[in-house]
Amino acid sequence: MKVEILSIGDELLIGQTVNTNATWLGQECSKIGLRVMHVTTISDDKSAIISAIDAAFLRCDIILVTGGLGPTKDDITKHTLCEYFDTELEIHLPTLQQIEGFFARRNRPMLESNIRQAELPQKCEILPNLNGTAAGMWFNHAGKVLISMPGVPYEMKGIMLDEVFPRLKQRFELKGIYHKTILTQGIGESFLAESIADWENEVRESGLELAYLPSPGLVKLRITSYEGISRKEEINAYFTVLKDRFPRYVFGEEEETLPQVIGALLRKEKLQIGTVESCTGGALAHSIMAITGASNYFSGSFLTYSNELKQRLVGVSETDLAKFGAVSKEVVEQMAANGREKLGVDVCVSTSGVAGPNGGTTQKPVGLVFIAIATADRTHSFQFQFGDERERNIQMTVLTALNLVRCELLGLIIEKK
Amino acid sequence: MKVEILSIGDELLIGQTVNTNATWLGQECSKIGLRVMHVTTISDDKSAIISAIDAAFLRCDIILVTGGLGPTKDDITKHTLCEYFDTELEIHLPTLQQIEGFFARRNRPMLESNIRQAELPQKCEILPNLNGTAAGMWFNHAGKVLISMPGVPYEMKGIMLDEVFPRLKQRFELKGIYHKTILTQGIGESFLAESIADWENEVRESGLELAYLPSPGLVKLRITSYEGISRKEEINAYFTVLKDRFPRYVFGEEEETLPQVIGALLRKEKLQIGTVESCTGGALAHSIMAITGASNYFSGSFLTYSNELKQRLVGVSETDLAKFGAVSKEVVEQMAANGREKLGVDVCVSTSGVAGPNGGTTQKPVGLVFIAIATADRTHSFQFQFGDERERNIQMTVLTALNLVRCELLGLIIEKK
Repeated sequence: MKVEILSIGDELLIGQTVNTNATWLGQECSKIGLRVMHVTTISDDKSAIISAIDAAFLRCDIILVTGGLGPTKDDITKHTLCEYFDTELEIHLPTLQQIEGFFARRNRPMLESNIRQAELPQKCEILPNLNGTAAGMWFNHAGKVLISMPGVPYEMKGIMLDEVFPRLKQRFELKGIYHKTILTQGIGESFLAESIADWENEVRESGLELAYLPSPGLVKLRITSYEGISRKEEINAYFTVLKDRFPRYVFGEEEETLPQVIGALLRKEKLQIGTVESCTGGALAHSIMAITGASNYFSGSFLTYSNELKQRLVGVSETDLAKFGAVSKEVVEQMAANGREKLGVDVCVSTSGVAGPNGGTTQKPVGLVFIAIATADRTHSFQFQFGDERERNIQMTVLTALNLVRCELLGLIIEKK
Repeated sequence: MKVEILSIGDELLIGQTVNTNATWLGQECSKIGLRVMHVTTISDDKSAIISAIDAAFLRCDIILVTGGLGPTKDDITKHTLCEYFDTELEIHLPTLQQIEGFFARRNRPMLESNIRQAELPQKCEILPNLNGTAAGMWFNHAGKVLISMPGVPYEMKGIMLDEVFPRLKQRFELKGIYHKTILTQGIGESFLAESIADWENEVRESGLELAYLPSPGLVKLRITSYEGISRKEEINAYFTVLKDRFPRYVFGEEEETLPQVIGALLRKEKLQIGTVESCTGGALAHSIMAITGASNYFSGSFLTYSNELKQRLVGVSETDLAKFGAVSKEVVEQMAANGREKLGVDVCVSTSGVAGPNGGTTQKPVGLVFIAIATADRTHSFQFQFGDERERNIQMTVLTALNLVRCELLGLIIEKK
């Protein structure tokens, strides 16, 4: 079954509101095997709405319309739908009672415009809105359906979950779509694609779809089966091959994040972590402590942005700072090892680099970053060359450092100092 | 001039990625008077792309296409555009050199798939991508234009700002819309609206438009003139009235950020700043040091997330920690005053609070936050009650702390300890 999402509202077009409704509908439809083919966003304009519905009925079976059902003058969806489906508005008594109850419970006076919210098209099934005053509407049309809902996210979600999805499941015998995603860090999209070309061919030849979803520092790989959950085991097996081949890159699945993954490892091993940060300036610590319950394993950090504080707070050798510079293997290793002692933690990770855009030299260009990890057993460091953009270099350093901590905790880093 | 945004990518349809590109393009187009009429999101599918371009050319003058330009097999936009505009791919030498430089600077090997990124359609103008390997493409078609860009947000934004907007402004004589925005922190949207009702009426009666643009911790106020820059002085005068009335809330204009504003103040006064953070865990320091050139005024921080580190690193009194608790006026003031000495900075700001979702009590509920600022003259603290959501409480604390630093530096905080 093909779905089109039709989002109505000027605030979406001028970028004042992010269209998170379409994102949520996309996620929920995929879960039950409805395939979203098209998302169309248009203005609160009658002819634009009519053309969009015409086009959507040509290519899809189910149209999910959000927005334009409010009580103000710029909300015209209801009237436009009456015109489109050649019907009239009439007072819908159950909806009127529901609206009256809504205002009574909140002790707020009911306005004329609120009563008009109960005027609904004759030729549709009304879908109650328990969270607001704009009811949903279900229109049948030549074997297809159009469902109109308010744009307020939690009202729309309520109607979808309570009314729309159960009816759709019943009405169209839904064959599932099944997705699975794995997450990698530390390998670029093209390099990953080249390394897994054989595996990718196998996946595609078996009739599954594969997508690369890159974002700064991460690449997600998603396999999709249009035959539903029946191919779940097969997809898991494909991903197991990848995990075994690239344990240092593959760090998780689905919605997991690196701070969650290392948080779980630290809790399991009952270890405390701390950081000594220069070029990340707190971004690494913040990513670790932003997870609920981080106080169980995160104690604190030194942010030693200036050389003076590197010496004074964590005892980096003045001679080494002068000899090798702040952005060096020697300094970053002292930061991690000394920080571990001074913070009294089990694992300490340190960063030092040229975040940019200024401060680069021929020997130490913008984007050069050192990361060190100190544990009870050893301290070792890694060198990276990231890009030109300051905030992106900071984020790349954070993600890379988190993945190195993961690898260290799992014993995946082979090189010894 | 009418614009259609065409977003290509399965990840958008299934809701794995939020379409923030369309939001940003909507905002930026509106600023220069281009009207976004339609946003269409479709899959990486040749016939869907071709139908969408056909439909978009019928209703709009400018089509902005994002996505599907990566080096992997599922990226088909470039080939589809060749077919649509009846042209062939050929190696574009400047792009090849740019890609080679991109990999050379990063010391990374170049793959066959990266070289293929330099194969571009003959019948278009190439728009260099300084942040990645997928160049932008500008096609002219029957008096209209189609521009194809990568979907990675910062690559797309770079191409739009460097190449596309300047050309569009020149090519279509854009009739100015003039916007001016001022930024406030520390006052909620409805409270602000109530406080400036008289001023708002005056603005609206003069034929200018006013919009409130709230985001967590900030409210932007935007005045728009559809008569272009001719009303600039008048708009400035309106905003001057607001700045004089609310100097503690109004902190900047347009795209300014609080870290930039306090960065400029610290540089001007030749002062060094440091932080001692508990509930913000590095987010405050990171926001300060994320600004280019922050090393001129930011030295470093203590992140004392555990009570033990509050005592051991910055010498908070063990008795006071036991008596008042970590989230208290007494502790946050000691953190700031002692941190100032130990970091050797002029201004030190500290945070301690219950970020949530756990750890709240009746006396100290989730969202309770103390912030202190220590200078050579005095140390004083402020108490806030934010909300229930952890990451949002952290962000509210960061923005509030930054604005308090601004007020302190400008002598706007009247209460003495």
